[in-house]
Amino acid sequence: MMKDTALKIIKEAPAAYLTTAGLDGYPETRAMLNLRNEKSFPKLKSFWDGFNEFEIFFTTNTSSSKMGQIKNNTKVSLYYCNPASWLGLMMNGDIEIFKDEEIIKKLWQEEWTMYYPGGYNDPDHTVLRFIPKRVKLYSSLAVHDLL
Amino acid sequence: MMKDTALKIIKEAPAAYLTTAGLDGYPETRAMLNLRNEKSFPKLKSFWDGFNEFEIFFTTNTSSSKMGQIKNNTKVSLYYCNPASWLGLMMNGDIEIFKDEEIIKKLWQEEWTMYYPGGYNDPDHTVLRFIPKRVKLYSSLAVHDLL
Repeated sequence: MMKDTALKIIKEAPAAYLTTAGLDGYPETRAMLNLRNEKSFPKLKSFWDGFNEFEIFFTTNTSSSKMGQIKNNTKVSLYYCNPASWLGLMMNGDIEIFKDEEIIKKLWQEEWTMYYPGGYNDPDHTVLRFIPKRVKLYSSLAVHDLL
Repeated sequence: MMKDTALKIIKEAPAAYLTTAGLDGYPETRAMLNLRNEKSFPKLKSFWDGFNEFEIFFTTNTSSSKMGQIKNNTKVSLYYCNPASWLGLMMNGDIEIFKDEEIIKKLWQEEWTMYYPGGYNDPDHTVLRFIPKRVKLYSSLAVHDLL
């Protein structure tokens, strides 16, 4: 039941807020495309069947500052929310550079050539995989640990 | 101009996403009341006049797990956003337990007795102050450093 609520938040959240550790030790948060959002990425709906329900993929620029941060420290947090309610989902765990070309190809969306002209194997296109360690659901006043 | 956009995001964001460092080294993110949101806290509109534009106060439960995290590591990040657009504001800096009773009294909202029955000086009521070190504005594709 709690798990269903958590999965629904992920499916509906407009973005995923990813926090990495900056090289100066200060955390740094930014919004990332939420590839599990079914409205934004309808073509990926069946893609997720092969993965753990809380496993997350991100696409990013290889040249972005977060890449250096991730190489230095793989510990990150993710936050998803429904801004209209006070429902929030926090996950933390490790993030890694993902190399499976077969899966990267499946994840690739045609419209991304706008950001990565070379397509899925553009050298500036990197796929990141998040492996959850802890999953925490926040409802108005209560906190529930799901993992 | 960029600064005005940043201040507008803070004033309108439904919540502030605060990331602290967990005791296990993993960052942890949660939504906090955005006391600078003028719709949610109209009575506080003039309160902010005396403070730096990017200085932020939070109220929290003294018994919450974030308190132990903050005592262990004061480095945090804050994220504000307008979920409809891709406008986001990231700040990082240090957070401290704030003790000025005069100001805590001014910040206090009557409806918070729901969470802190003893009022502004309820032992479970803590005010936190965030002192910014870096302010980063994210628009659709560009990133602007404001501090």
